[in-house]
Amino acid sequence: MTLRDADRDFADALRARLPRLDLRPAEGAILEEPRGRFHGRGGLVARPRESGEVAAIIAAAAQARVGVVPYGGGTGLVGGQVKPDAPAPLILSLERMNRIRRVCPLENVLIAEAGVILDDLRAAAAAAQRLFPLSLASGGSARLGGILSTNAGGVNVLRYGNARDLCLGLEAVLPDGRVWNGLSRLRKDNTGYDLRGLLIGAEGTLGVITAATLKLAPIPSGQGTALLVVASPEAALDLLGLARERLGEGVSAFELIHRQSLAFLAETLPDLRQPIAPPPEWSVLVDLGLAAGHDPQLALEDLFAAAQARGLVSDGVIARSEAQRAGLWALREAIPEANRRIGSISSHDISLPLGAVAGFIAAAPARIGRPGAYRINCFGHLGDGNLHYNVFPPPGHVRAEYDSRREEIMHAVHDLVHEMGGSISAEHGIGRLKVRELERYGDPVRLDAMRAIKAALDPMGIMNPGAVLR
Amino acid sequence: MTLRDADRDFADALRARLPRLDLRPAEGAILEEPRGRFHGRGGLVARPRESGEVAAIIAAAAQARVGVVPYGGGTGLVGGQVKPDAPAPLILSLERMNRIRRVCPLENVLIAEAGVILDDLRAAAAAAQRLFPLSLASGGSARLGGILSTNAGGVNVLRYGNARDLCLGLEAVLPDGRVWNGLSRLRKDNTGYDLRGLLIGAEGTLGVITAATLKLAPIPSGQGTALLVVASPEAALDLLGLARERLGEGVSAFELIHRQSLAFLAETLPDLRQPIAPPPEWSVLVDLGLAAGHDPQLALEDLFAAAQARGLVSDGVIARSEAQRAGLWALREAIPEANRRIGSISSHDISLPLGAVAGFIAAAPARIGRPGAYRINCFGHLGDGNLHYNVFPPPGHVRAEYDSRREEIMHAVHDLVHEMGGSISAEHGIGRLKVRELERYGDPVRLDAMRAIKAALDPMGIMNPGAVLR
Repeated sequence: MTLRDADRDFADALRARLPRLDLRPAEGAILEEPRGRFHGRGGLVARPRESGEVAAIIAAAAQARVGVVPYGGGTGLVGGQVKPDAPAPLILSLERMNRIRRVCPLENVLIAEAGVILDDLRAAAAAAQRLFPLSLASGGSARLGGILSTNAGGVNVLRYGNARDLCLGLEAVLPDGRVWNGLSRLRKDNTGYDLRGLLIGAEGTLGVITAATLKLAPIPSGQGTALLVVASPEAALDLLGLARERLGEGVSAFELIHRQSLAFLAETLPDLRQPIAPPPEWSVLVDLGLAAGHDPQLALEDLFAAAQARGLVSDGVIARSEAQRAGLWALREAIPEANRRIGSISSHDISLPLGAVAGFIAAAPARIGRPGAYRINCFGHLGDGNLHYNVFPPPGHVRAEYDSRREEIMHAVHDLVHEMGGSISAEHGIGRLKVRELERYGDPVRLDAMRAIKAALDPMGIMNPGAVLR
Repeated sequence: MTLRDADRDFADALRARLPRLDLRPAEGAILEEPRGRFHGRGGLVARPRESGEVAAIIAAAAQARVGVVPYGGGTGLVGGQVKPDAPAPLILSLERMNRIRRVCPLENVLIAEAGVILDDLRAAAAAAQRLFPLSLASGGSARLGGILSTNAGGVNVLRYGNARDLCLGLEAVLPDGRVWNGLSRLRKDNTGYDLRGLLIGAEGTLGVITAATLKLAPIPSGQGTALLVVASPEAALDLLGLARERLGEGVSAFELIHRQSLAFLAETLPDLRQPIAPPPEWSVLVDLGLAAGHDPQLALEDLFAAAQARGLVSDGVIARSEAQRAGLWALREAIPEANRRIGSISSHDISLPLGAVAGFIAAAPARIGRPGAYRINCFGHLGDGNLHYNVFPPPGHVRAEYDSRREEIMHAVHDLVHEMGGSISAEHGIGRLKVRELERYGDPVRLDAMRAIKAALDPMGIMNPGAVLR
């Protein structure tokens, strides 16, 4: 099915339907994505204010056969929000649908529109003495619609799950322009297929999420954070096992950090205080959230002692104040920014079965190149088996010199991940960056089922064309 | 698309493909379901031993246009496992695919085939010092495939989620007879549409689940159980809030029990010891699972004292031994059996937003009939907003006298549930019993999307015909 440009004729048709719609030519930042790998080529930007407008826009796009690219905070790292090729799309920015519609503290539920920024969601939950647990480095700009559409993860998946796990219901506009009113506040509802779960993670290719019912959690009574030096990734995983044995769900986050992360931080963000010198080869950031009557600092001290007795940890710092906690987390959350400043050749958002993580970290460098050919920054959500495995030029070189090697490096990493039963996209999604990688590694039966579902729900292919599936 | 009988010709065709397949005429118990509301009408039963056989069976059924009814433990309460109308189907029993393929304690993962019985799954996890948290009264006969296909719930959803939440990956045969190898052990994998989540809860209408990767949890170090007398459903919900504030995820189950449950138990199962006399109007069974160093009995005593100070609880028993714990749970788990012996006119597996539960319980009797016209047994998973709201004849009468009233009662209950934002099937599914109810109450946009997905994945309509969707 051939799509058409979102041109002046289409703009006129949209204005005829929706005279008050904020509709403009697409230009500037909305055509770029954070890593600069995709550049949009014009088209239109619509900024609807409510779901009825979204429905009318999608219906018009379906009638005119114009592609629609839903746009949240623009923080996606796989190009899901930027269509670089012709025909030019209508970019549907949800930024003006930014209302918190309802907070039900008794039910641990919050209903918000797709354009709400993550930090604002968390603040609204906190104002009701509740926690919205999803936490990302890009929380100041990522918006709910994009978070759900990419099934975002972040640092608290270990305890609270990813975006799909935190969503009870959706309001969405399907590709025929009809609104599905699925803003359920129910914890259990077995009345047919899980359309909610299907739209979450579909990256806007099956419809546009306009609002969602989210799960909140009680705020843990006491929170504690430590940065612990471990001997190896194996030791880190044993420490995780020990921590969960002793503290159960009290372990909220468990992040692996390699010395390369700390070196990049020192180089690009020298004002960030690094608490352990010299920088250890491997360390983990452990975050606890405990119920009333339990002291997280004491729990971390006990954990450290038990782990030290088993030879798992050798050094570390336990935050003694909220400011120290924030300082440890600031280190972790600044790693992506440091990476951006250095400039990776190829970044990999991979996951592995927990039992394969250490083997992967040991085997991967040799698959990529000779020793010293690259700098590797391996960090991430170890508790979920999710590593950000990013490859950088050696000192004195820049990524542009390695353009011709990028694909080879990526395939070396992804081949190994695939052999070990892992995923080539743990939390960032497929977008446009990994469409061919999905074809290369994805199960063909599942891919055919995905194509059949796409064709069934979006027969004209107007929704985020080129993302996820070709 | 017209289907054909699973007749002798089809049996011959299957035997030609699979000479060693256990294939017989369908007769006896496999044609009945627990409440006796649906009766199968012949056809064939195949009992494959591995997924390759399942694939060949489905391919043959697709070629011959024979309907396939997947069959697990036969415990489903909505007729999903029994096709009562012509043409007669092939019943695909997974009972011989009952291997635990792998247990990975380090990863908290277990891989099992669809025919494994729930209690055996739990035992296999326990043998590896892990917990498989899903727990149902029918755990001695329910099988994994049916549990996943109905997205079963049970008593520990509050803490650990339902079947969908406990599954990391699937192996399944799709309606074209191809095997999807999706037995991922990954905690995070964002590579396209959530086919796993779609097949879970699809009640065998989109394919046959043959194996699954399941999440395990650490076994809580100490477990404690109490039966507490509460003044009202509102007080029960306040008690839940208080318990979660104090104990976080440590609250594993929170079950509401009405006096009618205890009266039915006394009448039908008089040997079961009832610990509180006279039987209280409302009570809750609270189950805790706490990490090392925390005494659950003490925690329950503290909770009781705090709740008593707020006027939420007036009496109760805290189990002092594993035997006492088992005794309290035996009471709760015997309620369905007591109900079966009394014989309900209409049973309702409903869920409500937590904030609407008390209002529903207050308003529903008047919607059903004049005071005293019926006995109502309202119990269930209050922590999830999931009530089993079952309507029985008054003393001295039997359900058969009320056959003509069943639909009217059901609609009275479901209309109110729907008005209050609830679900007409919280955990049992749609099966064949609630197909028209789903049409009556379901969102039409979502239903159309479901039909489109069904047509896309199962264009000939061979998979569990008549279940979920007509």
